[in-house]
Amino acid sequence: MQPAPSGDALQPLPFGRVTIIGLGLIGSSIARAVRLYMPGARVTGYDADPAVRDVAVRLSLCDAVADTPGAAVADAEFVIFCVPVGAMGEAAASIAAGLPANAVVSDVGSCKESVVEALSAALPGAIIVPAHPVAGTENSGPESGFASLFRNRWCIVTPAPDAPALAVSRVVAFWEQIGAEVETMEPHHHDRVLAVTSHLPHLIAYTIVGTASDLEEVTRSEVIKYSAGGFRDFTRIAASDPTMWRDVFLANKEAVLDMLQRFSEDLSALQRAIRWGKGDELFDLFTRTRAIRRSILEEGQDDARPDFGRAHE
Amino acid sequence: MQPAPSGDALQPLPFGRVTIIGLGLIGSSIARAVRLYMPGARVTGYDADPAVRDVAVRLSLCDAVADTPGAAVADAEFVIFCVPVGAMGEAAASIAAGLPANAVVSDVGSCKESVVEALSAALPGAIIVPAHPVAGTENSGPESGFASLFRNRWCIVTPAPDAPALAVSRVVAFWEQIGAEVETMEPHHHDRVLAVTSHLPHLIAYTIVGTASDLEEVTRSEVIKYSAGGFRDFTRIAASDPTMWRDVFLANKEAVLDMLQRFSEDLSALQRAIRWGKGDELFDLFTRTRAIRRSILEEGQDDARPDFGRAHE
Repeated sequence: MQPAPSGDALQPLPFGRVTIIGLGLIGSSIARAVRLYMPGARVTGYDADPAVRDVAVRLSLCDAVADTPGAAVADAEFVIFCVPVGAMGEAAASIAAGLPANAVVSDVGSCKESVVEALSAALPGAIIVPAHPVAGTENSGPESGFASLFRNRWCIVTPAPDAPALAVSRVVAFWEQIGAEVETMEPHHHDRVLAVTSHLPHLIAYTIVGTASDLEEVTRSEVIKYSAGGFRDFTRIAASDPTMWRDVFLANKEAVLDMLQRFSEDLSALQRAIRWGKGDELFDLFTRTRAIRRSILEEGQDDARPDFGRAHE
Repeated sequence: MQPAPSGDALQPLPFGRVTIIGLGLIGSSIARAVRLYMPGARVTGYDADPAVRDVAVRLSLCDAVADTPGAAVADAEFVIFCVPVGAMGEAAASIAAGLPANAVVSDVGSCKESVVEALSAALPGAIIVPAHPVAGTENSGPESGFASLFRNRWCIVTPAPDAPALAVSRVVAFWEQIGAEVETMEPHHHDRVLAVTSHLPHLIAYTIVGTASDLEEVTRSEVIKYSAGGFRDFTRIAASDPTMWRDVFLANKEAVLDMLQRFSEDLSALQRAIRWGKGDELFDLFTRTRAIRRSILEEGQDDARPDFGRAHE
C-alpha cells in the first residue's frame, strides 16, 4: 500500500465504512482510491446491473459487493451515489428503509441543485452532503476506473443548508484523502460554473461530431482520416456516456440554455467578422484565448506537453 | 541516424537540395525530419524574422540558413513555403527572381485554392505542387518542431492542373520518406474537407474560450480551476497561432461559413431538444457520436489511451 497522497499516512479516517452505489468509471475509481489510500476503511459496493456487480467481484474492487441496495447500506457510515443524475431519486429511494440514521449521504453528480432536491425528497431527515469531483475520462464502466483519477483535480462540495458542519468536514476530508483539492460552493452557483466549464463543451462537442457525420459531399472516411487537424479533439468528449449526459442537460437546463445563448451570440459575431473580412477582430480574439490556456497549465489543470501528451512516435 | 520510417534506408532521394521558407513549428519539423530520415539531402532554411534565423542556426536545424530569400533558393530542387496562407503570395514573390527553372515549389498551408492562386500568380511558369500535412501541435516557433511530427499522419497533395506527373511523384515520395501517408485531392475538395475536420473545430474552440472568459457571474479563476470537466480540451487548439488561423478563416471563407451554418442549425436543434425535455433525441445523438471516436482510434488517428494519454499520476 502506498501512503495517502497528502503524505500523512496517519490521518484519522473520515469514515470507517463506505458504501458506493453505482460502480461505473467514477464509483469504481472511488473504490480503488479508498482501498489504496485509506487501507483501514471497509468498502461495500452495489450496482443495479448484476453484470457490473460480477465484474466488481472479479476485479476485487470492494471488500464486499452487496446483492441489494438495502444490504449495501446496512452498516454504512458514508453512502455515495455514483449513478446518472436522473437516476439519483430512484437510487436513494431504494436505500431509504435500510439507511442508518447517522450515515452521511453524498453523490458525484455533475449538477447539484436537482440532485439536492432528489436526495432530500427520497431521504427526508438524512444528512446530505453532495459533491462533484471534476474528473473523469471518456470511458465508462467498472473496468475503466483507476485510483489516481481524483489526484490534483478539484472536488466541489455543495452541502444542503441544514447539513451539520461536522458531516461537511468529514466529506471534505474524505476527498482530500483520496487526492482531490476541495472547494465548497452553493449548488446554484456550482451549476452555473459547470454549465460553462463542462456542460457547454460537451454539448458543442456532441454537436460538431454529429454535424461532421451528416455531410453529403465530405465522406465519413475523410472526416476520420483527416481528424488530426483538430476534429479528433472533440470526439473524445463526444464519446462520453450518453445516459449520464442526457440527464445532465435535462437537469441543468436553465444554466445550459443560458450559456448556449451566449456562445451562439459570440459565434455569430465571429461568423460576421469572417464574412466581412475583419481580420483584426479575429486576430484579437485568437490572441486573447491563448492566455487562458497558459493559466490552465500554470495551475496544473492540464498536461503541459504538446498535444496533451499524445504519443508522437 | 535512424533508418527512414518506411523501413527502406536505400530509397532514392526525391530531392537532393531542399529549401524551407518559414522556420516555425511546421518548417522546423520538416527540417528536422529531412535531416533525420534523408541524411543525403541538403537543407537550406530561411525565415523573414532574423531572430528565428538565429534560433535555427543555434539549433542546427538546417545545413545552412540563408540571409535572403534569393540566396535560400539559389540552387534549390525543392522549395517549401511554411508561412501563414495570407503571406504565401509575398513570400513567393520574394524568391521569384532567384528560383531555378526546374525547381518544384510547394507549401504546407491549411487551405489550398487560395494558395494555388497566390503561388501561380507570383511564380508564373513554375512547377507548383502544393501540399498540406494534417499534423501540428498548439505550439508555435522553431523550437516547437520535432522530426516525428508527420509520422502516421496524412499529407494531402493538391497539384496544380498543369503540374508534371514526375514532379507530383517526387513530392509524394518526399512526404512518404519523412513518415506521412499521402493522398492527392483537388484543391476545392480539400478546402471543403478541412473546413469540417480542422477549420470549424478551431473556430468553435476559439469561440467557447472567448465566451467563457467574458462571463460576469463565473470568474475566470473558476473557469480555470474547473476546466478538467471538458473545457480544457478546447483551450489547446484555441492556443494555436493567431496569424495562421486568421489567414485560414479569411482564405477559406466560403467553405467555413457553409460548415458553420450547418453546425448552427444542428446546435439549434439540440437547444430545442433540451428546452422541451426530449431526452430520446439527445440520447440518440450521443450514442451515434461514440462510433466516430471508435473509427478514429481504429485508424490510428488518435491516442487510444484515456484522456489522450494525459498524465494521471
